[in-house]
Amino acid sequence: MELLEKRILEEGKIIGSDILKVDSFLNHQIDVSLMNEMAKEIYAHFKDKNVNKILTVEASGIGFACIVAQYFNCKVVFAKKHKTRQLTDEFYEAKVHSFTHGDDNIIKVTKKYISASDNVLIIDDFLASGEATDGLMDIVNQAGANLAGIAIAIEKGFQDGGKQLREKGIDLLSLAIVDSMNENGITFKK
Amino acid sequence: MELLEKRILEEGKIIGSDILKVDSFLNHQIDVSLMNEMAKEIYAHFKDKNVNKILTVEASGIGFACIVAQYFNCKVVFAKKHKTRQLTDEFYEAKVHSFTHGDDNIIKVTKKYISASDNVLIIDDFLASGEATDGLMDIVNQAGANLAGIAIAIEKGFQDGGKQLREKGIDLLSLAIVDSMNENGITFKK
Repeated sequence: MELLEKRILEEGKIIGSDILKVDSFLNHQIDVSLMNEMAKEIYAHFKDKNVNKILTVEASGIGFACIVAQYFNCKVVFAKKHKTRQLTDEFYEAKVHSFTHGDDNIIKVTKKYISASDNVLIIDDFLASGEATDGLMDIVNQAGANLAGIAIAIEKGFQDGGKQLREKGIDLLSLAIVDSMNENGITFKK
Repeated sequence: MELLEKRILEEGKIIGSDILKVDSFLNHQIDVSLMNEMAKEIYAHFKDKNVNKILTVEASGIGFACIVAQYFNCKVVFAKKHKTRQLTDEFYEAKVHSFTHGDDNIIKVTKKYISASDNVLIIDDFLASGEATDGLMDIVNQAGANLAGIAIAIEKGFQDGGKQLREKGIDLLSLAIVDSMNENGITFKK
């Protein structure tokens, strides 16, 4: 998506070898107009998939998920992050390792908010190794729901998450796929 | 706001003496259609205040803030929560005590995302003792920005936060003010 790639080139900051900071428009300050344009692309791609629920994980996916949900006219559920596991009948839980923070989180969704009749679109701001999307898919599976697909703002194409999802046959839409990023700049996969 | 009060009566669960659980539509599952109706009320109230930035705190305020920002055609900034204080030139920081979790968080906003020329509307899902709004106002003050007002989904009118803000002359709009909640049900302040 050219509009998003342009913003990444204009405002993105590369930190170290694998952090792309886009907190001026995506995950600290949020450009809601840009997100609406992104949401239209996602709707165009998934509009025939009968999506009736959008699933994301706190915190930075929530705003994006809410904007997208307006196009599908459906509700959002965001998984909550906890440091500890408390197995109860009330929650679906999955473990997610964060490479950015170097620790594990347990993500939780109250069972009654995803059911076997749901057709779920997973939304997130970033896809790198795929840990967060794997955790969210685990929850969709536990609920017996159908996974309609996954929509991502920025995929780091030089990490394995996207490749693995595509090999599984999952309908994955990444609005921008970063092919390389280094001192020479950022290139995108077309 | 009748529509919101109706949903609180239909779906809200009272836990102990002061927790009102509304996670079926506000802060775990999110009813984006309801949020749009709430956003219209907020816009009607603050539309002449020249709001050019919306400030909230992660996680449950983010979705609401993004929906509201569409009406004001402005960007959202969400403060990030950390357990530790790292004084740097880069962030505005404020301490926020959480009565729900019994601990303190430091909330942070990157300095360049709020400036003295901004006219800020603070948004949050709940107002009780006012700790979170105090922290956000502290950040607005540090930035030298103007506070246009504060918009809240649900105020617990039996706690002091709202009263203190009104006594300070702050333009506070709470879409539903819970006057009492106990085994006999929930009543609202009109």
